[in-house]
Amino acid sequence: MSEPWALVDGQAGEQLSIRDRGLHYGDGLFETVRREGGRLRWFDRHLERLALGCERLGLAPPDAGLLRAEADAVASESPRAIVKIILTRGAATARGYRPRGDERPTRIVCAYDWPPAPPAEFRAGLSAVRLGINPQLAGIKHLNRLEQVLAQRAAARRELHEVLMLSSTGGAVVGGSMSNLFAWRGDALQTPPVADCGVAGIMRSLVLEAAAALGIPVRIAALPVAELSGIQSLFVTNVRLGAQPIHWYEDRRLVEDARTAQLADWVHGTPA
Amino acid sequence: MSEPWALVDGQAGEQLSIRDRGLHYGDGLFETVRREGGRLRWFDRHLERLALGCERLGLAPPDAGLLRAEADAVASESPRAIVKIILTRGAATARGYRPRGDERPTRIVCAYDWPPAPPAEFRAGLSAVRLGINPQLAGIKHLNRLEQVLAQRAAARRELHEVLMLSSTGGAVVGGSMSNLFAWRGDALQTPPVADCGVAGIMRSLVLEAAAALGIPVRIAALPVAELSGIQSLFVTNVRLGAQPIHWYEDRRLVEDARTAQLADWVHGTPA
Repeated sequence: MSEPWALVDGQAGEQLSIRDRGLHYGDGLFETVRREGGRLRWFDRHLERLALGCERLGLAPPDAGLLRAEADAVASESPRAIVKIILTRGAATARGYRPRGDERPTRIVCAYDWPPAPPAEFRAGLSAVRLGINPQLAGIKHLNRLEQVLAQRAAARRELHEVLMLSSTGGAVVGGSMSNLFAWRGDALQTPPVADCGVAGIMRSLVLEAAAALGIPVRIAALPVAELSGIQSLFVTNVRLGAQPIHWYEDRRLVEDARTAQLADWVHGTPA
Repeated sequence: MSEPWALVDGQAGEQLSIRDRGLHYGDGLFETVRREGGRLRWFDRHLERLALGCERLGLAPPDAGLLRAEADAVASESPRAIVKIILTRGAATARGYRPRGDERPTRIVCAYDWPPAPPAEFRAGLSAVRLGINPQLAGIKHLNRLEQVLAQRAAARRELHEVLMLSSTGGAVVGGSMSNLFAWRGDALQTPPVADCGVAGIMRSLVLEAAAALGIPVRIAALPVAELSGIQSLFVTNVRLGAQPIHWYEDRRLVEDARTAQLADWVHGTPA
C-alpha cells in the first residue's frame, strides 16, 4: 500500500472538484483514525468530534454507519493503517466566502501506510509560530492548519520532531503542533485547556480517562511557558503516537516518567 | 459563461488530487483579479502580494508571465470577469503537517462571471466572529478562511452584505470579512492596520494612493469598535466592490461622503 486508496463520496477515486470549498477556504473538517487488527480504534470518539465540528461549521454530519464502512473499506487490505477522513462543505454553488446553504458536503476517506516507529530520542522545542485565538474554531479539527504547517516547517529545519506552541497573546503553552501536551507536576498530571485554541485530541481524552481510572490527579490548567524550565517530564499525545515521552526539550534532557507508559497501556487496552 | 473555465497547472480541467495540501491544510494562497475591457487590472500588485505570501509560506512563486497568460486565457471570451488564482504547496509527498520540501506547487486559474451590481443600500453590521492574531499570516491572502466563512454565514442570516470583524483580543475593528474598512474622520481618512490580522487588500493600497494623490490626509490607525458610533461615513474596499459606501451600519443610517466616489474614480482611472 504505497499509494493511499481512497473513496470520494463513496466512489473509488483520487480527484476532487477545484470548486470545493475545502480547497478555497479550508471550509471543512478532518479526522485521523487508527486501524489495527482489523478494527477502527476509538471511532465513536472521532464521530463525536466530527459532529461537534459539523455543528460549529453548519454542516450536515455524514451517516455514521456509512463513514465507518468506508473507513474499514479503504484499509481492509492492511493489518494496520492510518485512515484519514475529510469532510468539506462541498463544491461552491456561488463565488465568495458566504455559503449559499445548498452545497452538498464532500466526503473523502483514504488510507495511509502505518508510519515508522517514533525515534528513540524524541526531540521537541518551542515554536516561534503562535496559535491565533478563536473559541469558535478551538477544539475541533478543521482544515485551517497553516499555523501548524509553518510550525512544522520550522521544526524540520531544527531537526525537531515536535514543537510546542503558545497562543498568540500571553505566554501559555497550548500544546504541540500535531499533539496535545501533558506535564508531570509532582503527583499530578497537567494539560492545557483547548477552549481558545488547539485541538481536543482523542488521545488527550483517553489519557485523561486513563489517569482517572489509575487514580492519578489531573489538572487542566494553563501552562505558562516560564514554568516549562521547572518541569522534568513531558509527553505529547495523538492517535498516531499514543503517549509519546519528550526526551529532549530544546537543550535539556527530560526524564521519562514510568506512569506515562501505564497510561498508554491503559489506553491501548480500552475496547473499541 | 455559467461555468468557470479553469486551468490546473496549465491544463484545461476542473479536478485536483485529493492529496493536495491546499485541501488538507489550506496550505496555499489565492488572488481574486478583475478583468475588464480585455485587460487584467492591477495584476502587478496581485503578483507582488502573491510573492509575499510565497515567501511567508516557503513556496516557489509561479512565473509571472505564465500566470498572466493563464489569467487572460481563462477569461478571454468575456468582456469582464473575475479571475481567481489559487496556488498551493501541491500534492503531499508524505503524511502530516510537515512539508518535505519536494512538493510541486499546484496552480489553479479560473474565471467567474462578473458579479451582479451591489445593492442600492449596502448593509453592514458587527460580526460575533473574531479574527485570530497571527503576524506571520496577516496581510497575505492564504487559504485559511474559516473565520470569514463563519462570519459571512452569520451575516447571511441577518441579511447583511458585509460584517465588520474585531481581532480576537481587544476591541479594535480590523476590517470587513471580505473587505478592508475606511472611515471618514473629519478631513481625514482612517483605515486599520493589517499587521496582526486581516488582508492587505489591493483596493486598500489603491485607495491609500488615491488619497495621497488627491491631498486627503490618511491615518492608518487602530479603530476601537466604541468609536464607530461617532462615525458618520464608512466604506469598504475590495477588488470586486471597489470603494463601496456602507449605507446602514446595524440600525444606523450612514452618510455617503462625496470624496469616496472621487477616490473610486481616481482608482478606476489608474493605468493597468
